[in-house]
Amino acid sequence: MAAIKVHGFHASTATNMVLCCLNEKQVEYDFVLVDLLTGAHKKPQYLALNPFGVVPTIQDGDLTLFESRAILRYLAQKFKGQGTDLLGSTLSEEALVYQWCEVEGQSFNPPVSTIVSQILVVPRRGGSTDEAAVEMNIEKLGKVLDIYEERLSKSKYLAGDFFSLADLQHLPHTHYLVNACGKGDLISSRKHVNAWWEDISSRPTWQKVAENMKVN
Amino acid sequence: MAAIKVHGFHASTATNMVLCCLNEKQVEYDFVLVDLLTGAHKKPQYLALNPFGVVPTIQDGDLTLFESRAILRYLAQKFKGQGTDLLGSTLSEEALVYQWCEVEGQSFNPPVSTIVSQILVVPRRGGSTDEAAVEMNIEKLGKVLDIYEERLSKSKYLAGDFFSLADLQHLPHTHYLVNACGKGDLISSRKHVNAWWEDISSRPTWQKVAENMKVN
Repeated sequence: MAAIKVHGFHASTATNMVLCCLNEKQVEYDFVLVDLLTGAHKKPQYLALNPFGVVPTIQDGDLTLFESRAILRYLAQKFKGQGTDLLGSTLSEEALVYQWCEVEGQSFNPPVSTIVSQILVVPRRGGSTDEAAVEMNIEKLGKVLDIYEERLSKSKYLAGDFFSLADLQHLPHTHYLVNACGKGDLISSRKHVNAWWEDISSRPTWQKVAENMKVN
Repeated sequence: MAAIKVHGFHASTATNMVLCCLNEKQVEYDFVLVDLLTGAHKKPQYLALNPFGVVPTIQDGDLTLFESRAILRYLAQKFKGQGTDLLGSTLSEEALVYQWCEVEGQSFNPPVSTIVSQILVVPRRGGSTDEAAVEMNIEKLGKVLDIYEERLSKSKYLAGDFFSLADLQHLPHTHYLVNACGKGDLISSRKHVNAWWEDISSRPTWQKVAENMKVN
């Protein structure tokens, strides 16, 4: 059987979610570089795979699939009995995994991606960081992390006492927030969030991905 | 077995996604009103169920679950053999359902919810609609709908030739956009999107929900 192809870019947070998941599931893959710096994601060849022109997209046999969080679910289901179980063991556990995946997508991602973009991406494109936007989103993110702190005082991971897709989805953006944006205090100032971050970010499957995330 | 409790509010788009899904799955439920107008969603009793203080939240036996899109998945899985199948019949079909669910959550929802909020909600709270924000988000939404138009020229529904959660997730916001915001041209000007909207919005399961969405 041909290996899964991952069309992605090494600095992309969404690509790195998928690579970490493939490592957790012990699945071999072929990486196909879509060079965002040369606009490869907006060329017809790539748009035929993904009309939104964003990375990543995977190809697994006849299936072409985009949207990183949907790719994670597909991999976690397809390789259910292999590597780390990322969905819990009952329907209720799986429901809580998806609940916290949605919290990541709807409440954590909007402020954190704005902060990371304003501090890391905008200046590289010759713009100036919008400090007011950064401050406003730090406040929003802080409120979300206060809820995480309460949750993580009761269970080791977000969905329960097992590492899941819900935790995994937080890795790439939090990595940039802590290691490249100078905003690690958002994490370290919260005891249980900090212990959770230390735990999940030290997983070998993630370390392997993080090595290739070129910040500078 | 006790019926599922849905804590929600009749004008809430997220609540109405869940009610439509329960109708599709032919599942009885008890509706518990969380009156957003009196701030019931920010009181300790509700925050104990959902720390984010938003609706809906469901209770099914021992399970308390929030995040509307995670609730949809739970219901579609738990009642897989009952009512309408909303997930497709193979792993690949289910992957495409989740792909388009993510497109709704990440690309359709941000602009449409801003438009609906600016036109419908802000004036009711004594504010003035930010017309520039409305215009900017109409442009963003139009680009997303152009991709839908292309997709729906090839398959009857978003994930394939079957109605799924991906289509269902679009009902509440599009209902307000068309019927309460005067922005129906975004839909009717696109042939395949319009046919899709006419189809999905005429489902009896949705009509029953829409009757209770008090716009005025």
